[in-house]
Amino acid sequence: MKILPRSVEKLIESFEKLPGIGPKTANRLTFYLLHVPQIQLDEFGQALSNLQKATVFCSYCSNIGESDPCVICSSPDRDPSTICVVEQPIDILSIEKTGKYKGIYHVLGGAINPLANIGPDEIKIAELIKRIKSGSIREIILATNPSMEGEATAMYIRQQITDNIKHLTSNIKITRLAHGLPVGADIEYADEITLSRALEGRREY
Amino acid sequence: MKILPRSVEKLIESFEKLPGIGPKTANRLTFYLLHVPQIQLDEFGQALSNLQKATVFCSYCSNIGESDPCVICSSPDRDPSTICVVEQPIDILSIEKTGKYKGIYHVLGGAINPLANIGPDEIKIAELIKRIKSGSIREIILATNPSMEGEATAMYIRQQITDNIKHLTSNIKITRLAHGLPVGADIEYADEITLSRALEGRREY
Repeated sequence: MKILPRSVEKLIESFEKLPGIGPKTANRLTFYLLHVPQIQLDEFGQALSNLQKATVFCSYCSNIGESDPCVICSSPDRDPSTICVVEQPIDILSIEKTGKYKGIYHVLGGAINPLANIGPDEIKIAELIKRIKSGSIREIILATNPSMEGEATAMYIRQQITDNIKHLTSNIKITRLAHGLPVGADIEYADEITLSRALEGRREY
Repeated sequence: MKILPRSVEKLIESFEKLPGIGPKTANRLTFYLLHVPQIQLDEFGQALSNLQKATVFCSYCSNIGESDPCVICSSPDRDPSTICVVEQPIDILSIEKTGKYKGIYHVLGGAINPLANIGPDEIKIAELIKRIKSGSIREIILATNPSMEGEATAMYIRQQITDNIKHLTSNIKITRLAHGLPVGADIEYADEITLSRALEGRREY
């Protein structure tokens, strides 16, 4: 017996396509939405349809935005001599929330991952090298994730910069975000690698 | 500086309204959807807008369906002398998946919860009593959740049936789903109350 109306099934299927949403969560969200006002459903639906229509990728940094160049690349308040290299646009959001960074960005669009067939040419490394060559960059912050793929990508980019650019100018600083204990964490529960990195990177107090 | 395009913010806001979806998950889902084909976004949006338009509540059992009465209430294969009382339509889905139940349902639309100002009159208990009075019911399965609210609701309904109906007919059986160890669980990790109920409800083997 087909218990669920077709419209309910369709929404469950749509939710199930999202990352991290399994069949149970898809069911729960759909049944919840059966009880909200129609206007909320319409707004949600409109937001989905318009998501990509109203956004463009910045031709400088590949961040998403409403305009090209994006608000960060076109801002006179940002320091264009510092580039922070991230994997995804969502990482920019996290870094901007700290309020501590005043430079510009470069979105790679992923990390090198041989298992998923993503090599250096599939992400925007060549574009980064071109930007560095053509601008007067003083610092490149490699802010790829502290994962296997992110580390490999950072190492690859460092090598590329050394090979292609260092001979032109020797005063480009390449940095990587600090590893260590997350604030609020327990040393008792820290993994060995994080704790080793925290020890290595200890600072005078 | 406003980093996010308005269309991205709008979708994040829509996701955040869903139960169990916090700001981080809303961000993650939205940024994921920036990379899917437009057709998938349109389908998702359509599914949302059409969700309630294509569904009605059954005037007998309050289940959601495409027609009124719903597929279960109108099916000649179901036994109308057994009513399974559940809190929400989603519970019907779970029970139907077992394939073990051939009776009909009654959806209360919630459970008694004084802290949330939900009394017996806010859920469909009066409708249940009316159904029992007017039909030739032999068994009522109280399948409200095994939570404080669900237990209180089950007790209240049993009392109501005793007060209002039992004098008319004495052969209505009122049952409640068994409590005990979930299949696949460890006795070691079972909580005391569940284990007590499992002992109380032990069966000859």
